[in-house]
Amino acid sequence: MDVDEIVRGLLNGNRRALARAITLVENDYPEGKDIMKRIFKKTGKAHVIGITGFPGVGKSTIVSKLTQEFRMRGKTVGIIAVDPGSPFSGGALLGDRLRMDGIDVNKRLWLDSGVFFRSMSSRGKAGGLSAKTGDVVRLMDAFGFNLVIVETVGAGQSEVDIIEVADTSIVVLMPETGDDIQINKAGILEIGDIYVVNKADLGGAEKTVKWLKSMLLLDDEAVRILEKMDHGSHNESVNDEILTDKLEKKAKDAIDRWIPPVIMTIADIGEGIKELADTIEKHREFMEKSGMLKKRRTVRVSRELLDLIMEDVKSRIINDTSLKFEEFVNRVVENEIDPHTAAEKIIEKLIFSKNSDTTL
Amino acid sequence: MDVDEIVRGLLNGNRRALARAITLVENDYPEGKDIMKRIFKKTGKAHVIGITGFPGVGKSTIVSKLTQEFRMRGKTVGIIAVDPGSPFSGGALLGDRLRMDGIDVNKRLWLDSGVFFRSMSSRGKAGGLSAKTGDVVRLMDAFGFNLVIVETVGAGQSEVDIIEVADTSIVVLMPETGDDIQINKAGILEIGDIYVVNKADLGGAEKTVKWLKSMLLLDDEAVRILEKMDHGSHNESVNDEILTDKLEKKAKDAIDRWIPPVIMTIADIGEGIKELADTIEKHREFMEKSGMLKKRRTVRVSRELLDLIMEDVKSRIINDTSLKFEEFVNRVVENEIDPHTAAEKIIEKLIFSKNSDTTL
Repeated sequence: MDVDEIVRGLLNGNRRALARAITLVENDYPEGKDIMKRIFKKTGKAHVIGITGFPGVGKSTIVSKLTQEFRMRGKTVGIIAVDPGSPFSGGALLGDRLRMDGIDVNKRLWLDSGVFFRSMSSRGKAGGLSAKTGDVVRLMDAFGFNLVIVETVGAGQSEVDIIEVADTSIVVLMPETGDDIQINKAGILEIGDIYVVNKADLGGAEKTVKWLKSMLLLDDEAVRILEKMDHGSHNESVNDEILTDKLEKKAKDAIDRWIPPVIMTIADIGEGIKELADTIEKHREFMEKSGMLKKRRTVRVSRELLDLIMEDVKSRIINDTSLKFEEFVNRVVENEIDPHTAAEKIIEKLIFSKNSDTTL
Repeated sequence: MDVDEIVRGLLNGNRRALARAITLVENDYPEGKDIMKRIFKKTGKAHVIGITGFPGVGKSTIVSKLTQEFRMRGKTVGIIAVDPGSPFSGGALLGDRLRMDGIDVNKRLWLDSGVFFRSMSSRGKAGGLSAKTGDVVRLMDAFGFNLVIVETVGAGQSEVDIIEVADTSIVVLMPETGDDIQINKAGILEIGDIYVVNKADLGGAEKTVKWLKSMLLLDDEAVRILEKMDHGSHNESVNDEILTDKLEKKAKDAIDRWIPPVIMTIADIGEGIKELADTIEKHREFMEKSGMLKKRRTVRVSRELLDLIMEDVKSRIINDTSLKFEEFVNRVVENEIDPHTAAEKIIEKLIFSKNSDTTL
């Protein structure tokens, strides 16, 4: 298949063409760029949903059930699983198998032409992750999927970057996922439009939901109260009252902004999935009406663009021998020159090397 | 304190000067660069140790006990805790408090002039993390600390990048930290020079150690056997034999390379810490004798240098209005131009803008 055939195939619903295009983009083949340029006008329609959460919280099951639900609502779904991968173990491969087992609860999904699944490894590949994922989202978008779900393990900054700029970003947690501070530190409270407490049958779910709701809505003072709150002590009810007051006041102040809802699910048996799908649709509506959709897509494109530019500059620096990158590295290692001065000199060269090329 | 005073103070063991220098570097003040350039010749002597592992495995306690142990051996220790941070919760602040509680098992450490502790937040700060951390390591190195320990939460790629290029990198795990595949996927089996199974009193530690040792030494075929190995089934002993054979064979092939040792610790009560300190010293010796130290430092400097260059280029792109970055972003959002073409145009401008400046 040449680029022409791939582009034509992709725009006409040929799944093999889509798969081929993704591979070309993922592996940085020049044809990938070509394809991206040519399908670009057909993009921008899909609703991009990001799902993240620590390993084991049940993201894949949620994605699977959510996909079934959206299929019943007549929507087609493209799924991208971003896998931290590992060159040693062939992580992406293992990941695929695992994820497929997870998603494969309903075998029909895999025979359904309204669903397309692809995993991407984030490790050991050249190229920026957010630009890559952005391109694969666009390919699925151009193919015509109504929804594109991007699933990542919510640990790395680059994965968080991806999810954060989805049209709708969903953070999946488990009941009592550790103490408050652990979750805070992971930055998880800042990135979600919707929070899911999965495995709600494990117990402790309501407490987690309550805590999450408070944290998502409260100011610093209230957070301090919450942190001091000795769970189970006789002071809890007093603190609860203070919190309830604060929550109500905040809720009044916040009618025209999106307060991230917290949804309990037991994805294994499909509980809470309908509510989650409803909330996703509601969020998309809010994003569109409020003008937030465009704002967020602007942030997303900024990151992608920077990512693309940085990759290009990086490869120039490593591959253009006239820049003497290696030599500078060695001189820094030998303590002959400090890294800041070395960096300045390389940047100067980077700009001047092109200079002399262009014979002004 | 001006730059002169800071540099002089730092090189003469003034801790306030060190603290000030770190702050300037961390916050990207121009004075920071100046200081780095001036102290550079005094660096390269410290042994840089990286410690990583998921939250809750006991990294901070290990760092604390290890520091005590090295102090008893007459070494001075600088500690850098890289915190994923969070603008919402002031994660770094909380992190500091928590870490100090953790390390503060022995209050004397904080009154000991042979120890210096500093935490860095990796989120919401401009500047590349590996360059930043590299600079802070150098400041501590120039100050004269024999050992510089960098502690990170082993989740993000940038944190892994840092640890991976320490002179000695240590990965801390807990017994039975989930299934094999989870660890693999995090890429953890590739980055350690020394593995620590902490909280060895929790049970399951020996199994984890055995599994780790095998995984660290084995080829793909053996890994497959291990994966199929039904723990507790009657086949285990047969598989064990196959593995033992393979391990012995591999060990013979690998006399002149470093096979990552796996050490059991109960850091809370100091168990295993002496052995860990011995192993760290042995590894440093190996790195020096084998020439690996220089090789690894070359990788470290390459990353730092790239990081510095990228940060500079990034800020040019964002701040130099003649490059029209924002305009290009908007045009991509409006579907008028695809991101690849936009990136190409900006790179062209980046190189030409300087061109016209320099009036060749």
